[in-house]
Amino acid sequence: MSRTIFFRNKPIILETASIGGPKESKGCLKDYIERKLDDDLFDEKSFEKAESKMMLAVIKKVIEKAKLDDVNIDSIIAGDLLNQIISSTFAVRNFNTGYLGVYNACATFTEALTIGATLIDGGYMKRVVCSTGSHFSTAERQYRYPLELGSTRPPQAQWTVTGAGALILSNIGDGPKITCATIGKIIDYGVTDANNMGAAMAPAAADTLLYHFTENGFSPNDYDLIITGDLGTLGSRIMKDLLWEKGIDIEKNHVDCGELVYNLAEHEYQGGSGAGCSSMVFCSYFYKLLKEKKLNKILLIATGALLSSVSSQQGESIPGIAHAVVIEN
Amino acid sequence: MSRTIFFRNKPIILETASIGGPKESKGCLKDYIERKLDDDLFDEKSFEKAESKMMLAVIKKVIEKAKLDDVNIDSIIAGDLLNQIISSTFAVRNFNTGYLGVYNACATFTEALTIGATLIDGGYMKRVVCSTGSHFSTAERQYRYPLELGSTRPPQAQWTVTGAGALILSNIGDGPKITCATIGKIIDYGVTDANNMGAAMAPAAADTLLYHFTENGFSPNDYDLIITGDLGTLGSRIMKDLLWEKGIDIEKNHVDCGELVYNLAEHEYQGGSGAGCSSMVFCSYFYKLLKEKKLNKILLIATGALLSSVSSQQGESIPGIAHAVVIEN
Repeated sequence: MSRTIFFRNKPIILETASIGGPKESKGCLKDYIERKLDDDLFDEKSFEKAESKMMLAVIKKVIEKAKLDDVNIDSIIAGDLLNQIISSTFAVRNFNTGYLGVYNACATFTEALTIGATLIDGGYMKRVVCSTGSHFSTAERQYRYPLELGSTRPPQAQWTVTGAGALILSNIGDGPKITCATIGKIIDYGVTDANNMGAAMAPAAADTLLYHFTENGFSPNDYDLIITGDLGTLGSRIMKDLLWEKGIDIEKNHVDCGELVYNLAEHEYQGGSGAGCSSMVFCSYFYKLLKEKKLNKILLIATGALLSSVSSQQGESIPGIAHAVVIEN
Repeated sequence: MSRTIFFRNKPIILETASIGGPKESKGCLKDYIERKLDDDLFDEKSFEKAESKMMLAVIKKVIEKAKLDDVNIDSIIAGDLLNQIISSTFAVRNFNTGYLGVYNACATFTEALTIGATLIDGGYMKRVVCSTGSHFSTAERQYRYPLELGSTRPPQAQWTVTGAGALILSNIGDGPKITCATIGKIIDYGVTDANNMGAAMAPAAADTLLYHFTENGFSPNDYDLIITGDLGTLGSRIMKDLLWEKGIDIEKNHVDCGELVYNLAEHEYQGGSGAGCSSMVFCSYFYKLLKEKKLNKILLIATGALLSSVSSQQGESIPGIAHAVVIEN
């Protein structure tokens, strides 16, 4: 079994676009998020329509920034957390391109990057857009409680990011390149607390990293940064402990997008989560650092909790998954 | 924009496995479906768990039939109709392989085949399993009404197939090969009747076929059969009319898996549907005909209706999508 792919032709991340909700736009990344919303309904009648409109906005923007038209894009690979990934569908409906819908919960962004990089690297396509998004209010009412209840959040909870990111992968041009991907395996440690996503996803992140390092002879020192998607503070600690037990120490060069996105000192519990967390943070902050050569080689590993409200109600635990991609100048 | 991929190394469909519910096992394909259930709960406590168990059963079976172990499989690409594709997740959880979750409603099977064939063809992986499934009772209660209501079905309705299929794609071995794929675009003609999936999906099927034929210089005569996934009787008629208007006649070599699966004379309305429809029918009936050289070149085009109960409640129309793959001896 081989879960690591090496890209010979090194697909290029030509351009990115990001959008963030009002809360995200006041967080630590406020100077990096490209479009900042001051209304999380985004002039729509429902939060679901707002979520889809955010994805539409970043896909449009990234195509525009690359000075392209949608007819220059071979396919859009997109996913989100809503049932039947409707935010992606109704966003992509506006473009004259192929569409591949993907879903691995909050690991969807790196899943899309892996599939997109394969399509470009193998010469099957010339330009592919990858996009994911999420919205606090749609996630809350779909996975947890109606917003109107004003439920108290437990301390282990994360906050679903209202935001989206999109990028263009291309076979030609300038920009950071995707050189390698490690596809995740489903790992289930039996966590059943739907408020503790970090704990559910941490073992999957640790498994993918362990596989990535040991099977390929890589070490954490090969990377300027190892960036997890949305483990949050507690999840990150669990993951680092699990890796430490296996003799791998990523303490000094690990960051988590969920920990970065809000100001954790201000009672944001464990930090951000959601399919839009890793995409918004990568497409704003990390892409800029790569372009400016402040970072030269990163390992981006988005992490997903593969539950639904039905699986939880039927007594199932929460399996996790994590896909890793290597991005370098 | 190019939505058609040609596979140079022609990934091989090494083996398939299929399972069908009690109704499907009494239908027209009863002599082809490999495992026939006489209980649609499949000894589980919920229909959702039964659906997942069907997918588990076919994935296990196909690996066993190919005389392999899960460690010989690089990744499983799977999807289904349930929220957050939990049937796929909880089935794949049992295997020691990578997992890529995909979702394009009932077009998921050919989406998975396209991504799987790309991974094999490009030399990124050696063996990939593709699987989709669906269950009448989980789909009814998720998309329409509680089963206990005993709602009357309108004449344009289809019947979600209780069944699943899985196949192994490999870089070496014997079997029919995937030689080409055309990725679908989202097409929305504004259909809002969630009981009329055929009408919602037909324009997408027509668009993909039109693109496949005209952009590549192909003709319907190049194929022994053009097999749509689950348009049903009405949807098939609409698709053929739309193509006829564009000067393409597929009347004499078109069949629809949804029309094949039940005995339509016995009041089954428009026939079968669901993500398991095309996979169960291909993995049982058509794969056998290909192996026996009764068919030598087919175009398989699964079709999906990209709605959710939320999008319908919020007044959205039902966009469709269809991905086509060429399979030949």
